[in-house]
Amino acid sequence: MTCPDHRPTPHLVVDADLLAANVAAMAAFADERGLALRPHAKTHKSPDVARLQLEAGAVGLTVATVSEAEVFAAAGCPDLFVAYPLWVDAAKGARLRDLAASAALSVGVDSVEGARAVAAQLPGGAVLVEVDSGHHRSGVLPSAAGALAESAARAGLDVRGVFTFPGHSYAPGVTADVAAEEAVALGAAAASLARHGVEPVVVSGGSTPSAAASDAGVLTELRPGVYVFGDAQQWELGTVDAAGIALSCVATVVSHAGGNVVLDSGSKALGADRAAWATGYGRLLDHPDARVVLLSEHHAVVDWPDPHLPEIGSRLRVVPNHVCNAVNLADELVVARGGETVDVWPVAARGANT
Amino acid sequence: MTCPDHRPTPHLVVDADLLAANVAAMAAFADERGLALRPHAKTHKSPDVARLQLEAGAVGLTVATVSEAEVFAAAGCPDLFVAYPLWVDAAKGARLRDLAASAALSVGVDSVEGARAVAAQLPGGAVLVEVDSGHHRSGVLPSAAGALAESAARAGLDVRGVFTFPGHSYAPGVTADVAAEEAVALGAAAASLARHGVEPVVVSGGSTPSAAASDAGVLTELRPGVYVFGDAQQWELGTVDAAGIALSCVATVVSHAGGNVVLDSGSKALGADRAAWATGYGRLLDHPDARVVLLSEHHAVVDWPDPHLPEIGSRLRVVPNHVCNAVNLADELVVARGGETVDVWPVAARGANT
Repeated sequence: MTCPDHRPTPHLVVDADLLAANVAAMAAFADERGLALRPHAKTHKSPDVARLQLEAGAVGLTVATVSEAEVFAAAGCPDLFVAYPLWVDAAKGARLRDLAASAALSVGVDSVEGARAVAAQLPGGAVLVEVDSGHHRSGVLPSAAGALAESAARAGLDVRGVFTFPGHSYAPGVTADVAAEEAVALGAAAASLARHGVEPVVVSGGSTPSAAASDAGVLTELRPGVYVFGDAQQWELGTVDAAGIALSCVATVVSHAGGNVVLDSGSKALGADRAAWATGYGRLLDHPDARVVLLSEHHAVVDWPDPHLPEIGSRLRVVPNHVCNAVNLADELVVARGGETVDVWPVAARGANT
Repeated sequence: MTCPDHRPTPHLVVDADLLAANVAAMAAFADERGLALRPHAKTHKSPDVARLQLEAGAVGLTVATVSEAEVFAAAGCPDLFVAYPLWVDAAKGARLRDLAASAALSVGVDSVEGARAVAAQLPGGAVLVEVDSGHHRSGVLPSAAGALAESAARAGLDVRGVFTFPGHSYAPGVTADVAAEEAVALGAAAASLARHGVEPVVVSGGSTPSAAASDAGVLTELRPGVYVFGDAQQWELGTVDAAGIALSCVATVVSHAGGNVVLDSGSKALGADRAAWATGYGRLLDHPDARVVLLSEHHAVVDWPDPHLPEIGSRLRVVPNHVCNAVNLADELVVARGGETVDVWPVAARGANT
């Protein structure tokens, strides 16, 4: 076990070499398939990580909010896509116009009302039509994409193409099926645009679980996020193995109550995410048979697989279930290489929800 | 519906009058029962809310971490209890000594190792022995409390008494049973201390769901937290009704995808908490029949109870399932009275996990 820093726990540590390997591997995969890579920066919220991604060939970044876009534009990112059906009022419009003055900017739309609001505030702005490929969160049906694109184009917007988030890939054993659904949905949506006189230049999809199965015959662009770090969800889905997980939460054993190991990494450090199929509230990086059976704000109760418990006061590495929410709870990422702290990166877009 | 501010969504709004009423009601309840009230400040993380609680008669504050204690000590709180089995290394010891110089300070212990570490760093420090009353998180069995107290006293600590968190009260229909278990456990623990020659001065318990059923014949002190704001968990448990909920997250309708209402208040604004018995990922304050059926980082998908959906661009008030985690995601609380913004309070202890 390597706990590279003696700062107070809980805190998040990034293994610089594993991070670099993850960044390089996804860049190489996208390059081999002829896909543009536009990583989702909501995972890391860090200009330092974004720089690595852009240096490795990413065409730009994906963000979820205008305030995330503002952070990464200020850090010099030249190309930003807000993959979200923004509601653009006057105040948000002014912020979008500022952004568009400093970076290539595109945003999502999934309704005529939303597109008209973008057009009113950002005349001629670049948009992509969001398509629901089966996650049933936001986005129009593929067959409705063309009509929306035509409305947006008539409102004066530059409709660049279509995008989807195949979020239903976050479940065991479904990767190939979800990637196939994504390709069918995006292909149908692109065809719908063409029928309505809008030529789709960008056909964008991809999540970390489904990226490897993406159909490069349909997609032009991938937007995975979690791959840079990995997390317990991806470990349990088989997308990464423990040896590739680049981020963990260093926690201290504070109690042996009930014969368990109680750690100080609770939901205010790890996030409270727990999918129905997850085996616990997070995993122990160096103890794969341990299970976090109870999580409260400052306690992670771990069912330990053998009677010899790690000592009270010792430190363990916990892998959050969902790394995006864990990072958003931290002000900084401690960067380590070979067991030594080499840097501290601010989570510059933490809390950037608007 | 009252959305008192036009700042970007999502953001948290506190109704000042409801907050004041909640603070006053718990203070009156504790006073009537002859119980000291030491509210848990992890809920609000706000010196402004703490001031209201102390002015209403609270004997001090409860906190979960040393860094929370530092925030409230700096804000002038004279009496702080860290209700947590701290592991005190040299660095944390120095911080505790600084704290003890500016406020009456006590901390939790639930192991001999933990008590010795406190004693080494904070000689003569005040401690309470944590007891497990059925939540099975941290704390010793009641019958073991006396032996631990005796060890702590021999190490030179000032053992003030016993405390528990009856966290298993967060479930439907169990309040009276859990409060009875709490009283039995605390009573047994106090008796165990006395048998070991340690007179318990403080017998501390209480959660928001169980507070009203607390046994004032056993307890001397209550430590509820959530009561100041209320949340969807308490609404569903029947501890509060919607008319008493003082905090909500103002969100914008961004999409009607799938015939649902999609809001911009995701897990990065509300927190990802969802108890097994919860009916959704949060509630709509003004629409009790609506259900948040899907929550991702920036989307709350709401199954709307009638075919007429609120317009895209309109604003709704969402009640987080677990307010403590929602507040910890925000930098500030917008304070409103009668529909007008009257103040903005910093969440000064946001992220104070160490």
